[in-house]
Amino acid sequence: MLKFNEAKKILLKNIDRLPTVKTSLSENILNTVLAENIISPENIPNCDNSQMDGYAVNSSDTKKTPILLKIIGEVKAGDIFFKKLKTGEAVKIMTGAPIPKGADAVVMVEDTEEERLKVKGQKLKFVKILKPVKKGENIRKAGEDVRKGEMILKNGTVLNPAQIGLLASIGKTEIKIVKRPKIAIITTGNEIVNASVKKLPKGKVRNSNLWTLITLLKRDGAIPVQFETIPDNLTKIKSAIKQAFSISDVVIISAGISVGKYDYVKTALKQLGTKLLFWKVAIKPGKAFAFSKMGTVPIFSLPGNPVSTMITYLELVRPALLKMTGKQSTGLPRIKAILLHNIYEKSDRKQFLRGFFYKKDNKFFVKTTGMQGSGILKSMSKANCFIVLDEKTSFIKKGSLVNIEILNREDGYGCD
Amino acid sequence: MLKFNEAKKILLKNIDRLPTVKTSLSENILNTVLAENIISPENIPNCDNSQMDGYAVNSSDTKKTPILLKIIGEVKAGDIFFKKLKTGEAVKIMTGAPIPKGADAVVMVEDTEEERLKVKGQKLKFVKILKPVKKGENIRKAGEDVRKGEMILKNGTVLNPAQIGLLASIGKTEIKIVKRPKIAIITTGNEIVNASVKKLPKGKVRNSNLWTLITLLKRDGAIPVQFETIPDNLTKIKSAIKQAFSISDVVIISAGISVGKYDYVKTALKQLGTKLLFWKVAIKPGKAFAFSKMGTVPIFSLPGNPVSTMITYLELVRPALLKMTGKQSTGLPRIKAILLHNIYEKSDRKQFLRGFFYKKDNKFFVKTTGMQGSGILKSMSKANCFIVLDEKTSFIKKGSLVNIEILNREDGYGCD
Repeated sequence: MLKFNEAKKILLKNIDRLPTVKTSLSENILNTVLAENIISPENIPNCDNSQMDGYAVNSSDTKKTPILLKIIGEVKAGDIFFKKLKTGEAVKIMTGAPIPKGADAVVMVEDTEEERLKVKGQKLKFVKILKPVKKGENIRKAGEDVRKGEMILKNGTVLNPAQIGLLASIGKTEIKIVKRPKIAIITTGNEIVNASVKKLPKGKVRNSNLWTLITLLKRDGAIPVQFETIPDNLTKIKSAIKQAFSISDVVIISAGISVGKYDYVKTALKQLGTKLLFWKVAIKPGKAFAFSKMGTVPIFSLPGNPVSTMITYLELVRPALLKMTGKQSTGLPRIKAILLHNIYEKSDRKQFLRGFFYKKDNKFFVKTTGMQGSGILKSMSKANCFIVLDEKTSFIKKGSLVNIEILNREDGYGCD
Repeated sequence: MLKFNEAKKILLKNIDRLPTVKTSLSENILNTVLAENIISPENIPNCDNSQMDGYAVNSSDTKKTPILLKIIGEVKAGDIFFKKLKTGEAVKIMTGAPIPKGADAVVMVEDTEEERLKVKGQKLKFVKILKPVKKGENIRKAGEDVRKGEMILKNGTVLNPAQIGLLASIGKTEIKIVKRPKIAIITTGNEIVNASVKKLPKGKVRNSNLWTLITLLKRDGAIPVQFETIPDNLTKIKSAIKQAFSISDVVIISAGISVGKYDYVKTALKQLGTKLLFWKVAIKPGKAFAFSKMGTVPIFSLPGNPVSTMITYLELVRPALLKMTGKQSTGLPRIKAILLHNIYEKSDRKQFLRGFFYKKDNKFFVKTTGMQGSGILKSMSKANCFIVLDEKTSFIKKGSLVNIEILNREDGYGCD
């Protein structure tokens, strides 16, 4: 059986980045990948402006203070003062307003007093400057944030909120990103009924995998396309997969991939002419995973047990999706934590145990969340991490440092 | 000036949980907060079923092996076998199929051989059992995942993908959650123009705060309602705020909250009869932050500089939103990291420096991302954390452990 690391390597080698699409800031572009270099067409800010409410002055007028300067006008943010300031003059200025010509500094309002004086019979406004200012003081220079011609974001950037603001600030409201993948979810099985069925017939199982997968896919920025549950019938499975090819970038099939007499997915894929890259991976749970391709469309066949579905999604499908959308990092966040109890879990396969971790005194601690059977969704629902055990591990002592992978980013990694 | 911790305390004390709403699994419920206890109305699985493809048998028949048992039929997942198994008989069974009456174990197919024998002139199917099985072996018991009457999720749970699957598995497709808040964003300022303006007039600034805030709010599960940019005009600001009250659970106002002559937000809020809980917080950047209330509607007035907007959102508004939506944890994920260079940043206020952290050899390292002015969105866009300096800190030596807060959950926390 293929080892996990080899399987992941083959998988990623056979996955290509999706094409580029044009989109706008008003779409959901958080965490999508930029597909162009962004160069600023202008300076930000686009002119020298005041950092303070105060008075724009010529700094050489303030060498000896206190000194009286004549107020020749006022300029607010968003306005322009068109006259040129002469020696002995000041312009009242608001934060963000452009610096008038002839001024080279701003005195903050707290270091001034306004006065009215009679000059040649006229009542005029003056400002008494109480402290000297240096040239450039309290001025935000044009281009201080971004210079004209500067590359502000590189092709391949995973867009965060500040970067989306930065794009807005230079007027780049239309951008190229890597396409968000459209993903067909085909759930199969005679025993599967819709989650909305109120009274569950004996031997039937509600379709939980569909809802887990939809949620996971949305979280990873993909667009799920949901199919009706397909019974264990070769013709119907083939027809669903064929339809999926025509409308999606990726196909995920849940269940029907094991060795049972009525597991038709492998046969269906073969008859449809897909290329099987591997089947069965040495992980526990989740062994019966298959990776195939139809042209450029990857097909992931996941074992049907709810926990196996989640683990193979997170450990094998998700890395592929991240690579398709242009991301560098393809694994779950991984840290080391101190094990709170002994673990006896013998297997030749790599194991992903459901764990719960927390932070205390800047250290991470972890324990398992209960029964580890592949059908036990309850222990999965309590988990916020996987404890990852390498192949052939059978016993780990309480207090050991173990590798954990963080599942729910919202849990805040042991937030204060 | 109010210290940050006191401000946050006052703020959270004055924020209540939003009402409960009914929703369905097909809505975006990931990371929303469940507002009811969920008790399973049935066992999951709802009957004993086979963990393997193989043969359902009476275990006492297999004490001495090899032994031949007569195959009296077959049962697949989703079907029921209605006859009762007698001693000397076996039923071919598929993974997930209900265990027939009279059987108490399953022999996996690998430990069997099928044979056709002539008995009294008839050709009959037999199975040769090669290994004994114990009672209960390879059987998944009814209720093994969830027992009827068991509380599977508690009121207050922040829903993760596995829990959404668990809800589907018990047929709970309609649930009560805490309402997602609708949030009016009012951006103000004579200098502000739409991000889509191609040629920026001198002294004008494109509205980046709107896009940063929309992105942050969506990420935190809120529903942003965007207003036109309002000029520095008391009547227009009042009218926008009044309209916002009538359609949203929270109002966020960007800019116009400082001490400038044309900063009308405080006056507008006063004239509208809102209650001011505090104005100005000892943080850098972001000092000019105000928290008011109009009845139950919180109003957050954020300073207009792009970085101040982000910091006050993340450190003060977001905690309030998380509390409103029923979450326990209200801070950004916080860890300690090793500082890669000296920091000289003197301030009486608590400081949030833009930083970049990474993991190496299971240790976290951090450095600043460049100029720290409150207008410098570029250094914010490069940051994946804040370096948090307590009040009156002025110098931190390279190599020290500093507190950092993680900004972009997608960065993967130093993923392998």
